Amino acid sequence: MHSPAAKVSGYVVLMTVQIIFLVLFWLFVRYEKTALPRAIDAEDAGSAKEHVSKYPQFQDIQVMIFIGFGFLMTFLRKYGYSATGFTLFMAALVVQWSVLMKGFLHMEGGKISLSLENIIDADIAAAVPLISMGALLGRTTPIQLLCMSIFEVALFAANEYLALNVFSICDCGGSITVHAFGAYFGLAVALMLRPSSDQNETGKLEGASYTSDIFAMIGTTFLWVYWPSFNSVLAEGAGGERAILNTFLSLAAATVTSFVVSALVSHENKLDMVHVQNSTLAGGVAVGTVCNLLLGAHGAILIGIIAGTVSVLGYRYLTPWLTANLRLHDTCGVHNLHGMPALISAIASAIYASMATVGEYQSELQNIFPAMVGTNGTETKIMGGLGRNASSQAGYQLFGIAVTLVIAIGGGILTGAVLKYTNFRNLKKDEHHQDEHYWEVPAVENKEEYELEKVDELLS
Amino acid sequence: MHSPAAKVSGYVVLMTVQIIFLVLFWLFVRYEKTALPRAIDAEDAGSAKEHVSKYPQFQDIQVMIFIGFGFLMTFLRKYGYSATGFTLFMAALVVQWSVLMKGFLHMEGGKISLSLENIIDADIAAAVPLISMGALLGRTTPIQLLCMSIFEVALFAANEYLALNVFSICDCGGSITVHAFGAYFGLAVALMLRPSSDQNETGKLEGASYTSDIFAMIGTTFLWVYWPSFNSVLAEGAGGERAILNTFLSLAAATVTSFVVSALVSHENKLDMVHVQNSTLAGGVAVGTVCNLLLGAHGAILIGIIAGTVSVLGYRYLTPWLTANLRLHDTCGVHNLHGMPALISAIASAIYASMATVGEYQSELQNIFPAMVGTNGTETKIMGGLGRNASSQAGYQLFGIAVTLVIAIGGGILTGAVLKYTNFRNLKKDEHHQDEHYWEVPAVENKEEYELEKVDELLS
Amino acid sequence: MHSPAAKVSGYVVLMTVQIIFLVLFWLFVRYEKTALPRAIDAEDAGSAKEHVSKYPQFQDIQVMIFIGFGFLMTFLRKYGYSATGFTLFMAALVVQWSVLMKGFLHMEGGKISLSLENIIDADIAAAVPLISMGALLGRTTPIQLLCMSIFEVALFAANEYLALNVFSICDCGGSITVHAFGAYFGLAVALMLRPSSDQNETGKLEGASYTSDIFAMIGTTFLWVYWPSFNSVLAEGAGGERAILNTFLSLAAATVTSFVVSALVSHENKLDMVHVQNSTLAGGVAVGTVCNLLLGAHGAILIGIIAGTVSVLGYRYLTPWLTANLRLHDTCGVHNLHGMPALISAIASAIYASMATVGEYQSELQNIFPAMVGTNGTETKIMGGLGRNASSQAGYQLFGIAVTLVIAIGGGILTGAVLKYTNFRNLKKDEHHQDEHYWEVPAVENKEEYELEKVDELLS
Repeated sequence: MHSPAAKVSGYVVLMTVQIIFLVLFWLFVRYEKTALPRAIDAEDAGSAKEHVSKYPQFQDIQVMIFIGFGFLMTFLRKYGYSATGFTLFMAALVVQWSVLMKGFLHMEGGKISLSLENIIDADIAAAVPLISMGALLGRTTPIQLLCMSIFEVALFAANEYLALNVFSICDCGGSITVHAFGAYFGLAVALMLRPSSDQNETGKLEGASYTSDIFAMIGTTFLWVYWPSFNSVLAEGAGGERAILNTFLSLAAATVTSFVVSALVSHENKLDMVHVQNSTLAGGVAVGTVCNLLLGAHGAILIGIIAGTVSVLGYRYLTPWLTANLRLHDTCGVHNLHGMPALISAIASAIYASMATVGEYQSELQNIFPAMVGTNGTETKIMGGLGRNASSQAGYQLFGIAVTLVIAIGGGILTGAVLKYTNFRNLKKDEHHQDEHYWEVPAVENKEEYELEKVDELLS
Repeated sequence: MHSPAAKVSGYVVLMTVQIIFLVLFWLFVRYEKTALPRAIDAEDAGSAKEHVSKYPQFQDIQVMIFIGFGFLMTFLRKYGYSATGFTLFMAALVVQWSVLMKGFLHMEGGKISLSLENIIDADIAAAVPLISMGALLGRTTPIQLLCMSIFEVALFAANEYLALNVFSICDCGGSITVHAFGAYFGLAVALMLRPSSDQNETGKLEGASYTSDIFAMIGTTFLWVYWPSFNSVLAEGAGGERAILNTFLSLAAATVTSFVVSALVSHENKLDMVHVQNSTLAGGVAVGTVCNLLLGAHGAILIGIIAGTVSVLGYRYLTPWLTANLRLHDTCGVHNLHGMPALISAIASAIYASMATVGEYQSELQNIFPAMVGTNGTETKIMGGLGRNASSQAGYQLFGIAVTLVIAIGGGILTGAVLKYTNFRNLKKDEHHQDEHYWEVPAVENKEEYELEKVDELLS
Repeated sequence: MHSPAAKVSGYVVLMTVQIIFLVLFWLFVRYEKTALPRAIDAEDAGSAKEHVSKYPQFQDIQVMIFIGFGFLMTFLRKYGYSATGFTLFMAALVVQWSVLMKGFLHMEGGKISLSLENIIDADIAAAVPLISMGALLGRTTPIQLLCMSIFEVALFAANEYLALNVFSICDCGGSITVHAFGAYFGLAVALMLRPSSDQNETGKLEGASYTSDIFAMIGTTFLWVYWPSFNSVLAEGAGGERAILNTFLSLAAATVTSFVVSALVSHENKLDMVHVQNSTLAGGVAVGTVCNLLLGAHGAILIGIIAGTVSVLGYRYLTPWLTANLRLHDTCGVHNLHGMPALISAIASAIYASMATVGEYQSELQNIFPAMVGTNGTETKIMGGLGRNASSQAGYQLFGIAVTLVIAIGGGILTGAVLKYTNFRNLKKDEHHQDEHYWEVPAVENKEEYELEKVDELLS
């Protein structure tokens, strides 16, 4: 049905992209000083070690991106190769692109300085299109996904620069810039690629098998366990420890709440694996933006309880409604895991920002809310200047999420239109949610043998 | 058969517990000073970092609790949702409860100080009811499990306080206070919930499938790999490195021994996955209490060899005997993985304590055996006072395990009685070891479709 | 067909080996000073902590060895117990043996000093026979595998000593001493054990199932994520950060390239899981030897692109050719994942060594290329003396890989001959690639029950 040339052309484009990356790295990227040899080694050893002190947290985040996201999306019965494979493919492409894109926004002397920090940022950026992929899971070609990720990460880098360096909002765990952006961008693409009314029913392979659900729990548990690293990696000073504690407690409370609410609202009061796999993590998203603030343990737990409740109710009632009424499909329910909990986090950040005082935050205020401090040595142009008061900072937090939503949804609509109306191949309904269109699948090859075994079994 | 109200009442109780936790955290828990902003940031940065230097080990322990325990228990054919899901549920509830319970025993000024240390302790405490859950796996409702964990963790905190702060025993890796306690508490509950004589046969789903056995190996390998972190996280100074080395070597020796003994005693001399999944880890338990002592590499290896042997023989001979004669079922064989190896560890600790001298341990003696030192600045009341000699310390080690057994077994019998005779619903024999009573299971929903496929295959 | 005595004799030998290890540890191994108590504790605390600063990287490597290798090899349909189980068994045996063997080459005062460094080295050494096991997967008995690993690790330790301490080559990530050695040793053993011409076809179980392929992705992703730790753990100073950055970028580029080339050369332009599981990792091997050099980001990416391409083409064209023409079977394709990428790494090391200058590397030169520096305080005898120039160092790099190949292939042929012609039992063709000859497999036990269920389903 498709000519071989059409089949490979997308891959050839991606190889070209990889080679362009090679050239751009050659032209623009240099090791940062800390990664270069120096005249005297002895005293630098300590400083070099200091410089890679975030390495263990980086590795935790790597696990979240490659194993966490990859396996969380294996829950579909016949889409496990794509879930784990495309995650690997997309992340490998995006981390390179992100080093370049974010680097271009922070160049010094026309060069990008490469250090551990850049690849931590790159891993965080990789989360963005992976979240969007969750909304679209099983309904796009790999080429569509990867091209989307190129557009998306460029926009993400621009929006993040705007939010953090121009609006100067706090977003320690990235709920606004990463989770909300990724979720609403993906949903906007999904809206553009929505099926016609006569094809709006659930796909026949759009469900789990017993084994695929357990594979997905690998993703859930690794995301759960390492989420404190994701939220705290960019926090400074004592804020790092608070980020760890708050994230841990919020996750724990969201988990207990998700189980309970799942049993209360599900069919026959049985627990639903979709909720267990996803809503348990909503506490990590909802505490993200505020994780380094002085929430108190009870603040973190309260946020977790709210997030778990909203997320399960979203899966149970909102997602089916959106599918039925807007034909907005959201395979992994990223709206419930990333979207709404990120909105909760943004609102919480406005509330806590409105109460922030120098007395409480002492010298940490300039790290957390740099625009609230008179002079902070920053070189970037902060909107409205320095010396904001607390309620003004709260306003900017809400402005930050609003702009993020506009850019994410607008960008998603444009990207979706490109994926739909230009030369990209679109999957047909009956090609959805199955690996075999893009992967060599062993079951098919061995089918005959398998049938013979079955008949043997029956006759014996 | 059960009214909807009865079905949800347990979950409602758990939600109430979560809300009580929220209130208790609000009333009693405050960030520790190290996690609070301070006047001058520059010089504190180092101290804040120092304070979270155990974070990588904390994350290893998180993996052990949520992935290690969770997946180790997926070995049953039809109980994978429960194994991974209830582990997540129970651990999320228990970590909060443990921060409170252990906090109440160490309050300062009526408040509990919250820092990374508390959540490390909380993760360790979560291991306790998860071990007990292993003994009961598949024979209780989730509500029974979770209520048991609430009772158990309260008792665990009390017993640990007694053992470490009053008897002043050494128990670096927690084999006495965590492993022995969890195993014998769980076995006592299992004894109370034992079936009537006519229902004592093995459940028809009480076995592995090929796939579920490989899922279980995820749990085994992560527990194996991170066990040195569990044993060393609370060790101080050079004892930390010894704890790592001794645990690593003991595990390696126990693993080789388990494979060999498994082949020697199993049917047709084939290897048994139950032994490989569990007995290989017995070396980690058996070296736990003594892991920071001066065992020498050969001491650690010898302990591993003994533990691997005892554990495999326990699975092969003792567990079936207990089931047949006492109707004591132990689904995961926690007696062989945690119970007996912990006894070995306690005995080893008495032997090594009896040989401890100031000459050998130098200034570390006051960390390891505080009661052997004249004055150690401790405020808690140590039984028999300070200045113990080595053989007296050895006696206290044995006293510590004896008291732990009494409290664990007594508490388990009481808890089991509550679970059996009060309002809790008990599972019937034919409901054992299957997810579908408490989970929406996809196979059932898709059964018709699946059968049609099968018939198609046969006819084609 | 085999007497019980024959069946257990191999296991008895292994137990004897374990007991010999116990004795050797008792006679020769002592804790290093850093792991011993000292007179004054206060100031040593820092130094003790410093000494275990590589602990997080050690744990990453542990995951690679036990989970990474173990699960990567679960891709065969009916060999998952063996893949995960024998990995555990072999690694547990080899880590002990490696501490002894490498220890004997670096004794001080007749004793081996035991510290964290030794068990990091031991984990790295465990990779060597695990790579060889990949070539042989499913075609040997466990006893053959384990005895092979004993021979192999002894030879590996000798060759590594020769390459690093006598030839003084650089090999930071071990591509020459670990990957090339393990791969070509394993292939040489496979050549000796090659089937007769009439049995040269692919085994009927020598393929993946849908589930086993997803299990294998657990291995792939953990290896991918933690590979920077493997390559950087032995790097010093700023070289450690470069090793992390270069490995990360090379892996990313190799991954994108592998996906594209896989689609271009595979049947119907579908992606092939074999390539995705393995070739994506070739970037980590190919950058190994040079990972701490001044490659620049573009150098690392270029190496990744080359490695990904060569590896996929190797799987697609070279491996089938070797099987057809030389009857050289390579179950996991270690030649494509470890062998050829390691050769690329060795060649790259000669190129970069030939360009190394003191001006660029400053004081790091004596860590990276000790033989190029006049005096470096080393005690080992460096071939040709100190003060080498850059092109001479390049020559030694090539000499190092050449000698490694000779020792690996020679040692592999001898070991293979021992496994084939002495008393070892050899598997017959129809026993290949299945667990049930050495493991109790549940499917068999429950077959009757399973068939009844199937018939029920069909009749209902």
